[in-house]
Amino acid sequence: MQILVVNPNSTASMTDKILTSARAVAGAGVTIHGATAKGGPASIEGHHDEAMSVPGLLAEIRAHEARGIDGVVVACFDDPGIGACREVASGPVLGICEAAVKAASMIATSFSVVTTLPRSVPVIERLVHGYGLSHQCRRVRSAEIPVLALEEAGSNARARIRDEILRAVEEDRCEAVVLGCAGMSDLARSLSEETGIPVIDGVTVATRMIEALVGAGLATSKVNAYATPIAK
Amino acid sequence: MQILVVNPNSTASMTDKILTSARAVAGAGVTIHGATAKGGPASIEGHHDEAMSVPGLLAEIRAHEARGIDGVVVACFDDPGIGACREVASGPVLGICEAAVKAASMIATSFSVVTTLPRSVPVIERLVHGYGLSHQCRRVRSAEIPVLALEEAGSNARARIRDEILRAVEEDRCEAVVLGCAGMSDLARSLSEETGIPVIDGVTVATRMIEALVGAGLATSKVNAYATPIAK
Amino acid sequence: MQILVVNPNSTASMTDKILTSARAVAGAGVTIHGATAKGGPASIEGHHDEAMSVPGLLAEIRAHEARGIDGVVVACFDDPGIGACREVASGPVLGICEAAVKAASMIATSFSVVTTLPRSVPVIERLVHGYGLSHQCRRVRSAEIPVLALEEAGSNARARIRDEILRAVEEDRCEAVVLGCAGMSDLARSLSEETGIPVIDGVTVATRMIEALVGAGLATSKVNAYATPIAK
Amino acid sequence: MQILVVNPNSTASMTDKILTSARAVAGAGVTIHGATAKGGPASIEGHHDEAMSVPGLLAEIRAHEARGIDGVVVACFDDPGIGACREVASGPVLGICEAAVKAASMIATSFSVVTTLPRSVPVIERLVHGYGLSHQCRRVRSAEIPVLALEEAGSNARARIRDEILRAVEEDRCEAVVLGCAGMSDLARSLSEETGIPVIDGVTVATRMIEALVGAGLATSKVNAYATPIAK
Amino acid sequence: MQILVVNPNSTASMTDKILTSARAVAGAGVTIHGATAKGGPASIEGHHDEAMSVPGLLAEIRAHEARGIDGVVVACFDDPGIGACREVASGPVLGICEAAVKAASMIATSFSVVTTLPRSVPVIERLVHGYGLSHQCRRVRSAEIPVLALEEAGSNARARIRDEILRAVEEDRCEAVVLGCAGMSDLARSLSEETGIPVIDGVTVATRMIEALVGAGLATSKVNAYATPIAK
Amino acid sequence: MQILVVNPNSTASMTDKILTSARAVAGAGVTIHGATAKGGPASIEGHHDEAMSVPGLLAEIRAHEARGIDGVVVACFDDPGIGACREVASGPVLGICEAAVKAASMIATSFSVVTTLPRSVPVIERLVHGYGLSHQCRRVRSAEIPVLALEEAGSNARARIRDEILRAVEEDRCEAVVLGCAGMSDLARSLSEETGIPVIDGVTVATRMIEALVGAGLATSKVNAYATPIAK
Repeated sequence: MQILVVNPNSTASMTDKILTSARAVAGAGVTIHGATAKGGPASIEGHHDEAMSVPGLLAEIRAHEARGIDGVVVACFDDPGIGACREVASGPVLGICEAAVKAASMIATSFSVVTTLPRSVPVIERLVHGYGLSHQCRRVRSAEIPVLALEEAGSNARARIRDEILRAVEEDRCEAVVLGCAGMSDLARSLSEETGIPVIDGVTVATRMIEALVGAGLATSKVNAYATPIAK
Repeated sequence: MQILVVNPNSTASMTDKILTSARAVAGAGVTIHGATAKGGPASIEGHHDEAMSVPGLLAEIRAHEARGIDGVVVACFDDPGIGACREVASGPVLGICEAAVKAASMIATSFSVVTTLPRSVPVIERLVHGYGLSHQCRRVRSAEIPVLALEEAGSNARARIRDEILRAVEEDRCEAVVLGCAGMSDLARSLSEETGIPVIDGVTVATRMIEALVGAGLATSKVNAYATPIAK
Repeated sequence: MQILVVNPNSTASMTDKILTSARAVAGAGVTIHGATAKGGPASIEGHHDEAMSVPGLLAEIRAHEARGIDGVVVACFDDPGIGACREVASGPVLGICEAAVKAASMIATSFSVVTTLPRSVPVIERLVHGYGLSHQCRRVRSAEIPVLALEEAGSNARARIRDEILRAVEEDRCEAVVLGCAGMSDLARSLSEETGIPVIDGVTVATRMIEALVGAGLATSKVNAYATPIAK
Repeated sequence: MQILVVNPNSTASMTDKILTSARAVAGAGVTIHGATAKGGPASIEGHHDEAMSVPGLLAEIRAHEARGIDGVVVACFDDPGIGACREVASGPVLGICEAAVKAASMIATSFSVVTTLPRSVPVIERLVHGYGLSHQCRRVRSAEIPVLALEEAGSNARARIRDEILRAVEEDRCEAVVLGCAGMSDLARSLSEETGIPVIDGVTVATRMIEALVGAGLATSKVNAYATPIAK
Repeated sequence: MQILVVNPNSTASMTDKILTSARAVAGAGVTIHGATAKGGPASIEGHHDEAMSVPGLLAEIRAHEARGIDGVVVACFDDPGIGACREVASGPVLGICEAAVKAASMIATSFSVVTTLPRSVPVIERLVHGYGLSHQCRRVRSAEIPVLALEEAGSNARARIRDEILRAVEEDRCEAVVLGCAGMSDLARSLSEETGIPVIDGVTVATRMIEALVGAGLATSKVNAYATPIAK
Repeated sequence: MQILVVNPNSTASMTDKILTSARAVAGAGVTIHGATAKGGPASIEGHHDEAMSVPGLLAEIRAHEARGIDGVVVACFDDPGIGACREVASGPVLGICEAAVKAASMIATSFSVVTTLPRSVPVIERLVHGYGLSHQCRRVRSAEIPVLALEEAGSNARARIRDEILRAVEEDRCEAVVLGCAGMSDLARSLSEETGIPVIDGVTVATRMIEALVGAGLATSKVNAYATPIAK
């Protein structure tokens, strides 16, 4: 099975981290292909960055489609351009927000999300509302760190995320925490052990869920909304 | 007051039609500036087209912002890139779907939408859900016409739209009908007279609503989600 | 364009304040007609006061309709009798709550409301729920001041409202604040400057939005729910 | 136990019918007091009629409160002025729509409503939405009869209601039908037998539910929204 | 009228307390029959306990149905097996959660629930969501006491519940409090007097509401979902 | 990886069919263990059957837990006792309805469900509402066949299901169809080919999704609602 994991921002070190996470959980017989969208922003912090990342993201998917790909993971928690990706790809496509919050809803009655900057909080709230999970999402929280701080060796990013998780446990009475950025992928396991609550990383979950959809013989419906784009 | 009306697709004849509609209703002292997004698709039919139109749309807004603009109308019923536009513009920004359905909710207890192709129906349903108006929207309907048929002299587009409006009145028991494409802007008034039900065009409504927001001294909040994009 | 702005309570000084606000923003060529509902309560604080204000409110609309009116603003944040007003008036009708919260939803991803007494909080929560904007409304707050304190020179009403706005910013993480009483209309601009967050006044927004609806050629649908009352 | 059943319209023959229904089901030891609101419309068909009925309705409640009343039923399916009634009365207050649809939700997983005129359909839909039962309400239907046709001996009102119930069973796949007008109160039992589906009359249900609330020691909370009106 | 009140857990002292509450409010001519489900857990604290209580609960209903019963109250706040009970019983069936929160919604614009253990909080939140009352439920709270502590003479259960009610009033700004366990039934009246807010006990409310449904001639619809189980 | 797939009804031929489906899609290195709940009904058609199946279902899970199981699939579309199973199992647990509708929401903007008997329709509607996917579920339909007809060689069950799928495509304008019974598991692939729309079988999807959760290192949160049952 050939799975493409695309990082929609242009920061290659983040792509590496994401691929490490995806490959660590990939099932037997699954090949993870990585890609970094070109021409977009170095990090996705808000609607503008998200919008500017999509053409490059679609280009990567088109390129890999030509070579044969069974499914696609879009590794940014804002789930940029998912509808467009579903039109372009032949196999199923998942954003890591959708995968993570739907997984959270399967293992806990409630969850909170911990993301990077405050400006991403309403973006994620709107996604969760669209996915129909507002009633299980206690709160979307920000650790008040820029995305790229997650790539800096000496930053206090991990400490801030851990503290925010502990606040979520205490104040939100949630049963699980979802990490709201692909760049936090390497932290999930140790933070879960440290805090005693399931900490969910969208990259690993989305990778395994795409495998699940492909393995169950499912692909994006081409009947209507996600039909191949009309040539113009 | 300087209002920018942008057509996010690249078809200039549609921009002309949109501007004619906008100027026909603009208030005293309001100048309507028109723009056509470059580099995008000739029409927006689905998620892919929508995503590909946004960079050109943002470029037009940036260019006009530099010259001084009080508010922006995005003249495509898929409301492409509205969040990104709100980050980039200093004044308020409205998509014609949001403007039209919120206006509909002010003059009727229920409405249906008549759009072009079936593939746009779920896109609009999702927008209406996000705007919180699902409980007032009876149904989103398609007249089964491509967007550019609206630009062709001899097409039966108008007849199909009229028939679909009459079906909406009959089957949906709605009290108003919203036209779900900027390219239908010239048809609203005559269709309303012919069918005996308010037929709402997003272009004219959005133009006057942007004037209203600007006139009331309101601009997009820059506090969090719609703050200016972070320079990278 | 002839716009009627009605104060549904019987306090003339509040009508004067409301008219000053409405006239300050009215577009070129728009005449604002003011009216004070007779026979109702001096202020509207709860369901009883609201219900008792409606017959007088409808009488004012009927009287002005006879002389020719293009649209109506009902200047009380409880949006009293709006459905009835829409049946009676020929042009569009807006309550200031509906106008303000829909405007807020166009310029911010979230907002809180600051109103007068705690007993008005559930009334407004129910309105916001009906308008479909609960998911964007962080919280409806009370500054714990009676409505008529807003008319008293030496009261600490403005200070309490400002403090409540600051608490909303801090605790609710909202991106805009809506003032939940027509009597606060004169405070919006200075409070917005002082607190650094958009502060929305329903009177000015509703005035401009009614202009927008009229200017776009829209009137209340007479097809079903808002048809003219049946003579008896 | 002293229960007041008020007819908010001014048609005394309808009050008589309502009282007959209420008294037929009242528990042992319960006295049903009847009242007809004065000064309002002869029937309530739309928002205007509803609004104009409320002052007379409140006057009846105040008058009976002075003599000692344990609970109040407002016998119109538009639930006019319920919030105001709850402020004025000391005991619990129920409108027949709220009572009927909440009872329906207790005995069936879904229900449809059959009311009089089409213009009342959106009014009832909004009530059901406010009561949180939209997900159990299949459809609100109109039998296309004026309210007062229910008082006319030779009208075909009953036949039209029966036909609409049968259409609801067939088309809506509902498990119960709620009659959407107090004037249909005398028809419920025979229509239920004739159609083979539970047909719920709000007058009888509300009468027994008010008894239930009083009997369980409950009265309207006076803590905030429904506190006694502030004297002015 | 013959009403069965079943305690789905196997603790007889709790059944006694429940019956005392039910009999204290039962209307004239109503006989309350009590039953304790056999073979189930001593208390219902979570999904497992709830599931294990249902076969014994159904057996009690079947046994009493054979002797002639007009309606059934299931006296556990998790509303275990209500759908199954409705299939098995001929008369109406109410769980005490449904009865209590629907009663709360009739006497207050908002309410909070105070239950026993934190693990029951999400169970009740899900029930309230299903009943459509999330928008009126401020918060479901736990007093952090095991169910059976309510049966122990010297426990501080009552003090903890009272403190949690006071916190609900202060923090949730609710207008009523619902007690979230049948074992708290004896405390409602005194806690209401002590805290000055309506405190609602589901056992008494459900008993009177079942009487109301029976008295109004209503029984569970056997049309579809709640039809008698198919013999196998 | 050891996955338990339990059939909560007692019909062994259905278990065999379910296991064949699960094993056909299981990933490399995954062992599927099958179990049939004892003491429950031969098929699950309504709330009573569902409730009676749970104790036997829990017993199977407990027995396999003792031997070491990584995850559990409950193979009945009513998702019986899922909360209880999550308390009892250490690994993740999925019902096939939850798995199937969440998968549907990942590959299509809308779906309909085709189940067996009409009485199961409201059960599934309520599940879908609880999972937050009502806005994507067009309609839950019944093919009007008893569950065990799916086990009979000469029945017209498959033809009826195919016809209902075609009606769903035509009338509901859905983009995917979910089969609403574990006993339909063998039909999904051929029906999808025959009808040209994705037809989703919960057994295969749930099997792969449980693998995904286990593979991503996720297990049911034991923090609160799904904590191990309290010993009594």
